[in-house]
Amino acid sequence: MRRPIISLLTDFGLKDSYVAEMKGVILGICPEASLVDVTHEVESFNLREAAYLLARAVRYFPRGSIHLAVVDPGVGGERKPLIVEAEGGMLVGPDNGILIPAARGLGLKKVYEIRGEGLLPERFTETFHGRDIFAPAAALLAKGVKPSKLGVEIASYVEVMLPRPRISGDKKIEGEILHVDRFGNLVTNIGRELLEELKVKPGSSLKIQFGRRKPLEVRFARAYAEVEVGEPLTLIGSWGTLEISLNQASAAGRFKVGVGAMVHVQV
Amino acid sequence: MRRPIISLLTDFGLKDSYVAEMKGVILGICPEASLVDVTHEVESFNLREAAYLLARAVRYFPRGSIHLAVVDPGVGGERKPLIVEAEGGMLVGPDNGILIPAARGLGLKKVYEIRGEGLLPERFTETFHGRDIFAPAAALLAKGVKPSKLGVEIASYVEVMLPRPRISGDKKIEGEILHVDRFGNLVTNIGRELLEELKVKPGSSLKIQFGRRKPLEVRFARAYAEVEVGEPLTLIGSWGTLEISLNQASAAGRFKVGVGAMVHVQV
Amino acid sequence: MRRPIISLLTDFGLKDSYVAEMKGVILGICPEASLVDVTHEVESFNLREAAYLLARAVRYFPRGSIHLAVVDPGVGGERKPLIVEAEGGMLVGPDNGILIPAARGLGLKKVYEIRGEGLLPERFTETFHGRDIFAPAAALLAKGVKPSKLGVEIASYVEVMLPRPRISGDKKIEGEILHVDRFGNLVTNIGRELLEELKVKPGSSLKIQFGRRKPLEVRFARAYAEVEVGEPLTLIGSWGTLEISLNQASAAGRFKVGVGAMVHVQV
Repeated sequence: MRRPIISLLTDFGLKDSYVAEMKGVILGICPEASLVDVTHEVESFNLREAAYLLARAVRYFPRGSIHLAVVDPGVGGERKPLIVEAEGGMLVGPDNGILIPAARGLGLKKVYEIRGEGLLPERFTETFHGRDIFAPAAALLAKGVKPSKLGVEIASYVEVMLPRPRISGDKKIEGEILHVDRFGNLVTNIGRELLEELKVKPGSSLKIQFGRRKPLEVRFARAYAEVEVGEPLTLIGSWGTLEISLNQASAAGRFKVGVGAMVHVQV
Repeated sequence: MRRPIISLLTDFGLKDSYVAEMKGVILGICPEASLVDVTHEVESFNLREAAYLLARAVRYFPRGSIHLAVVDPGVGGERKPLIVEAEGGMLVGPDNGILIPAARGLGLKKVYEIRGEGLLPERFTETFHGRDIFAPAAALLAKGVKPSKLGVEIASYVEVMLPRPRISGDKKIEGEILHVDRFGNLVTNIGRELLEELKVKPGSSLKIQFGRRKPLEVRFARAYAEVEVGEPLTLIGSWGTLEISLNQASAAGRFKVGVGAMVHVQV
Repeated sequence: MRRPIISLLTDFGLKDSYVAEMKGVILGICPEASLVDVTHEVESFNLREAAYLLARAVRYFPRGSIHLAVVDPGVGGERKPLIVEAEGGMLVGPDNGILIPAARGLGLKKVYEIRGEGLLPERFTETFHGRDIFAPAAALLAKGVKPSKLGVEIASYVEVMLPRPRISGDKKIEGEILHVDRFGNLVTNIGRELLEELKVKPGSSLKIQFGRRKPLEVRFARAYAEVEVGEPLTLIGSWGTLEISLNQASAAGRFKVGVGAMVHVQV
């Protein structure tokens, strides 16, 4: 029998025992679960970063995996606890939008508000639903309990929209930096298709402009190693969108830009 | 058959290969073990932090789990290697007190000094008992070896006492900050029962005084979201003790206090 | 049936979703794999650090484990993707030398360039071979696929040599600092055998000289706890080489030296 997989994404860090408490709860209910950390280093309360990283990661997990995501500034307030059912898996977490881009990527089917009468613990804290509500719900899903047993279907829920790029005027794309990774690569929201539409080919060069700064002429490459160490390049990164990088150095450090910065690309 | 669970808590960090070496040793002896990290980011040699985080985490693990904790400034010296048998599980680590609050929470039964003639490796380093003594002992317990086969019962052992709060005079509690979490929440040692005894009800307010500073009047809430973003509150946190927090911001940063600071609470 | 073990070492950090994407891919191919992180905090592109940490860690894993290591500045360029077959296990990663010291420690047998026609995905990015080539290769090995099915044997490959110490003149050893661990211990490349050859005995003292600085007379101990807290000592560390340490304090901080510094030891 295949072991159920539960992935975990939080902004809890690894210094405290919070993540371990969630895992202890899960293993108490579903000891055969295989637990995989996506990350626990989401910036505190940063919903858009959580949504982006979760949407990336879930694509690579086997069909049927359960994804538990807890970045939850509204814990204990009005926000609902959710289970999202998708073609490719199940997602569990707060109704603040972090689950939705990942769920759309997996083929969103239904959204449930967790109720869980008779199944979930009757007593829980109002400060740590990750451990007291979401972890047991994910573990019960992993045991094969249907989401309709744990909640009621709802029609509306919060969306976090990842910003979309647009073609502006004459072969110019307006995008945004979605993520800066550990290496300082600037991951934009400009997808491969948009560049293909404008007939950009590897080996050509692109004019890149951060905000209103002076544009830079940069090679559009296939791989980092095509330029000298320390030199800038652009390429389609591992998420399928345009990345602005330096070979073996930090583009974020060099260009002093971060998440949310506007990028104009002139073909 | 249920897979045995071994949790790991150390001050080794995740940059070195030390934790992985322990896990390799464990899986060599007990390949079916399910390994769960509690944390490896305990401040170097901080026994009280180790004791606090371990005592928190073990509560949420299934009965019968084995908890391996290695914060071990006295490695290679006189301090004994221990197995602690409790109602709710087993603990393995050095005799410097870090295991005891967790063991009491699980119902401490017996304490053994590890000897392990014929079972544990005869050669080991004097710098890394975590890998050479404690990891094999935990793995053997996970295989079902009795603690009495691995050691001899002893009557005295080192205690790390987590400081206790006290009621001082007229509806005033004197407590201490036990832990500052990733979010900057100030976790005190003042338990829910003490506040209930003084008839403090959610929705009321408390006077909080750090050391000899000017007291602050702060809402006693059920959840962070009851006050505006950035505003202070107190509540019973996820460990069942009074926490002093800001909604979505760092109380440790705002109030410039840390672990060990005295807190006076006036009802 | 024994679950196959796959260890992972990268310089990807734990903030991004890269490591989780690799794990998702592995579990999609080999759901029964037991995944163990060695470290993901190798300094970006530091091949020697990767080689050192991998060589340390693999010694403690059960025979037959598969070790996946991705520190890969040349991704998408000319460097080959490798599988290394050794007596004690299998290694997967780029042909830039990081696998070889570990493979020699496990008894290197054969080196294969990964081709994988018909087995590995036909489409892959040129920026993330860790996820798109190395992770599937490791998972297929874990499923029992022979390395000769995934690649072709090759005779030459890149080596990263860890620097070797030498005896210079009259009872003087010239070594180098290979690693500074979380505690600030200075791990040298001077092996136990070399000190035994010169008849150095625990309890004696050694003259330690960093570069051209004034030599220090330091106890050669068995354990940290033999000297007072904060005092310097040397000992054979947990990797079997000479370490220069302070008891419960950072030798790297005190002596202001780091990886690559020369150390002269006078017996």
